[in-house]
Amino acid sequence: MGALRLPSLTSIFAVSSARSSLFHQRSNQLHLRKLTSATAKSTSPAVAPAESSNQKLPVQEQGITPRSQDFNAWYLDVIAMAELADYGPVRGTMVIRPYGYAIWEAIQDYLNVKFKETGHSNMYFPQFIPYSFIEKEASHVEGFSPELALVTVGGGKELEEKLVVRPTSETIVNHMFTQWIHSYRDLPLMINQWANVTRWEMRTKPFIRTLEFLWQEGHTAHATPEEAEKEAMQMIDVYTKFSYEEAAIPVIPGRKSRVETFAGADRTYTIEAMMGDRKALQAGTSHNLGQNFSRAFSTQFADENGQRQHVWQTSWAISTRFVGGIIMTHGDDAGLMLPPRLASVQVVIVPIWKKANEKNEVLDAALSIKDILHTAGIKVKLDDSDQRTPGWKFNFWEMKGVPLRIEIGPRDVSSRSVVVSRRDIPGKLGKVFGISMEPSVLVPYVKEKLDEIQLSLLNKAIAFRDSNIVDVTSYDELKEAISQGKWARGPWVGSDEDELKIKEETGATIRCFPFEQPQGPKKCLMSGSPAEEVAIFAKSY
Amino acid sequence: MGALRLPSLTSIFAVSSARSSLFHQRSNQLHLRKLTSATAKSTSPAVAPAESSNQKLPVQEQGITPRSQDFNAWYLDVIAMAELADYGPVRGTMVIRPYGYAIWEAIQDYLNVKFKETGHSNMYFPQFIPYSFIEKEASHVEGFSPELALVTVGGGKELEEKLVVRPTSETIVNHMFTQWIHSYRDLPLMINQWANVTRWEMRTKPFIRTLEFLWQEGHTAHATPEEAEKEAMQMIDVYTKFSYEEAAIPVIPGRKSRVETFAGADRTYTIEAMMGDRKALQAGTSHNLGQNFSRAFSTQFADENGQRQHVWQTSWAISTRFVGGIIMTHGDDAGLMLPPRLASVQVVIVPIWKKANEKNEVLDAALSIKDILHTAGIKVKLDDSDQRTPGWKFNFWEMKGVPLRIEIGPRDVSSRSVVVSRRDIPGKLGKVFGISMEPSVLVPYVKEKLDEIQLSLLNKAIAFRDSNIVDVTSYDELKEAISQGKWARGPWVGSDEDELKIKEETGATIRCFPFEQPQGPKKCLMSGSPAEEVAIFAKSY
Repeated sequence: MGALRLPSLTSIFAVSSARSSLFHQRSNQLHLRKLTSATAKSTSPAVAPAESSNQKLPVQEQGITPRSQDFNAWYLDVIAMAELADYGPVRGTMVIRPYGYAIWEAIQDYLNVKFKETGHSNMYFPQFIPYSFIEKEASHVEGFSPELALVTVGGGKELEEKLVVRPTSETIVNHMFTQWIHSYRDLPLMINQWANVTRWEMRTKPFIRTLEFLWQEGHTAHATPEEAEKEAMQMIDVYTKFSYEEAAIPVIPGRKSRVETFAGADRTYTIEAMMGDRKALQAGTSHNLGQNFSRAFSTQFADENGQRQHVWQTSWAISTRFVGGIIMTHGDDAGLMLPPRLASVQVVIVPIWKKANEKNEVLDAALSIKDILHTAGIKVKLDDSDQRTPGWKFNFWEMKGVPLRIEIGPRDVSSRSVVVSRRDIPGKLGKVFGISMEPSVLVPYVKEKLDEIQLSLLNKAIAFRDSNIVDVTSYDELKEAISQGKWARGPWVGSDEDELKIKEETGATIRCFPFEQPQGPKKCLMSGSPAEEVAIFAKSY
Repeated sequence: MGALRLPSLTSIFAVSSARSSLFHQRSNQLHLRKLTSATAKSTSPAVAPAESSNQKLPVQEQGITPRSQDFNAWYLDVIAMAELADYGPVRGTMVIRPYGYAIWEAIQDYLNVKFKETGHSNMYFPQFIPYSFIEKEASHVEGFSPELALVTVGGGKELEEKLVVRPTSETIVNHMFTQWIHSYRDLPLMINQWANVTRWEMRTKPFIRTLEFLWQEGHTAHATPEEAEKEAMQMIDVYTKFSYEEAAIPVIPGRKSRVETFAGADRTYTIEAMMGDRKALQAGTSHNLGQNFSRAFSTQFADENGQRQHVWQTSWAISTRFVGGIIMTHGDDAGLMLPPRLASVQVVIVPIWKKANEKNEVLDAALSIKDILHTAGIKVKLDDSDQRTPGWKFNFWEMKGVPLRIEIGPRDVSSRSVVVSRRDIPGKLGKVFGISMEPSVLVPYVKEKLDEIQLSLLNKAIAFRDSNIVDVTSYDELKEAISQGKWARGPWVGSDEDELKIKEETGATIRCFPFEQPQGPKKCLMSGSPAEEVAIFAKSY
């Protein structure tokens, strides 16, 4: 079968290393355009030139920039060629295409069950928030006002009060909570919504940072600070478990520094993931909001003694950004690599025939294998198109990140067996011949392989992460680690100013104080003072 | 057990018939405020006075206006007291509360499977659309421009081109389709999105017509007009089947008149439902868009001969409005009545004890029944709170529309049996004593009853519908039927002007030309000319 293999998509174009990706070209265009108009009129252009969106080459004529060569160009190429997303007509917006949206649906399916198991109900709040609401919580308005999109005209008339398109919903949630919460019997109130949110970001990147994105936002109100803290921790645990078990991303859970805490929260917990270029991605957060919003909005309850008290609150979110995290954690030069548990296609079947008289028997066998796997609950696709050679299909589905490929040709039909290839182990090493078509053999074999791939992706990511975290004891060591592109972990009791100085001088920020802390006495890497905790510093998205 | 029953929620307050519902009061306030400010400044107020939202009485102190007395007040009372929705702070917006959102989730769960089975993929388009897009399709801009919400400021700066918050997505979908469709091999392209949409409506009503609502919108592109027509028909069939089988709403599927066709469509198919007040509700639509949008946006493909052609398109949608349709189809004086297949609680268990020593054994039995039903896949809730009497709970869960109630007291525990009451049959007639607790008896009994209720709701709605449709042969008969609050069905070949005249004179519009047509020669009820079809006329929401 090796003879049928086409040159890989990447090798075809690897020579033209100066070629930048389509996404890249368009980003640059928009960037230049932005700079020009900003100086000219101090207004920001909302709409990309319509022609720019028609420059796209058909997938098959274009290769992926090797990851090792240019991580950013690779990322944008994978998104374009695997048809995960596309730019929308408005600057910084993204169209999530079916293959990318299916990853988000898999994330939703898992989390939705977990949220309900932990006592939350789904509901929906309006996305238009009176501007005055945003101003009620002091640090919240400071954090969000530069990023707001405002509706000023409705039904042809100018509005008396401009409306904020929600950047997050704490304010409107509290406004409604005041109407639903009367006594301690109404608590805890634990809800979640799946929604779109808008933040007017200047530098955007598909999935990672877009003007509009999809997320879930949980909001809870409790009678005591202890319950709120327990809830905030519970939800960061749900996110951590999801990341490890479903996404095969070994995130590091921890607490944000004061500087990095959410605008309006007492404490922010985070899961930090190491991408393939070793930059950190904040992949989910859970906030203990204390009484900041309940005081701003007078969200009160009568306790068991009839005393009025402000509720204690949390909020927590994971967004479509996580899809970007999956791409950048597992992908390689050949393209996307999806963890089996989140893949919408777990197994692709590629039938192979040379002569016309072989076609029917091969397709019949392929179809019956598809049925067997489908019945066993495995997400399987049969690529039976006449348009492409098997070699082209191999590369295409590798690029799309499908975990397992089943090849079946005339000789396989005779021997009633198939060839199984793993996406995560390239070439012959990942290929096993002669797996019986018998359902009692094939089904458990495929399931076992999918589990192995899931675990293997996680272990590979753990090894990569651990080999790129350096324990440091001084600022010099920290600078050295960061300059090598690594994460630095060291004891920290520095001030907010020290933290901002490090950001300015190295580009790295405190990603978190990890929950898992080394034992024994520690001295702050900056001041030498006794420190209670280590912090992780890294450059980030 | 009858002795424990409290006076019903409605009967307590039935005397004060002048009392209007909370929703009603607030609507009036907003309405007055709108009129005042409109004359004063010719701007429309976006935000309701903050105090108005704190007027709400606790559920238990307030009764539901009887449906027979004031249908609109009843509807708003049910929404408030069953905690289905609440007003948002911005005029015309709605917060969908967990119990109401669960109905929407049940709708989503069913339709999402059907959409995928019929070959559609979910994806997501940005909600911000350049204003210029809306202007490209002539009738589309005419239909939607009065209802648009516009974002004019982003990130603190005025935008060069104002952005429309999507009222529907045909324009942006076509903009993207031009980039994805190249040849006939890319067709059919069949996608769907679950999203929020915004239409700046002046007269709003929870679920039925709100500034922002949730929906699914399907969009497809085909190579031939026949395929597009087939798709548009297929999707109205999916909606019809859903309405009958899941929602127990006997909608009448048919074709809209030219006057009522979607702005930008060649043909609109609709499902029309008769509400409890006999007004019609357009509960879902499917549009054959022809080439209207593909010509406006140059959405073309190369056919098998290499010729460029414009694609043929459809779009179709069902929204949170459907939840309003469920409330207004099945509800009665006691409140909501949910069809079992869409109920988030299908069975409520109410334990009953008088003496403290009875409590434990009753609760133990109730809990084991809950487990039995839950294990059998039945959505069950045990109301074991100490706060309320059983009689209060009976009324509360009836008001919430739970299809089946299981009562269990000390004597039931001794006899190892329970009492089962149907929501749809009031009083003793709907109550059966002595149903064994044995899983092998109880589970099939409960399932059978749920099926019976589902069918009974549908049959009742069919009987109600059919007894309120009058066949008419003249305009006088039509006027008579409409003035009695009924639907009029009669032969029609009238002009658009005739249709608009009827609307002006009677308040009724053509709801549809039903697919099911009587045989034989017909004469237009208006002109007496030979007619090929009957149309249904009715007042509508």
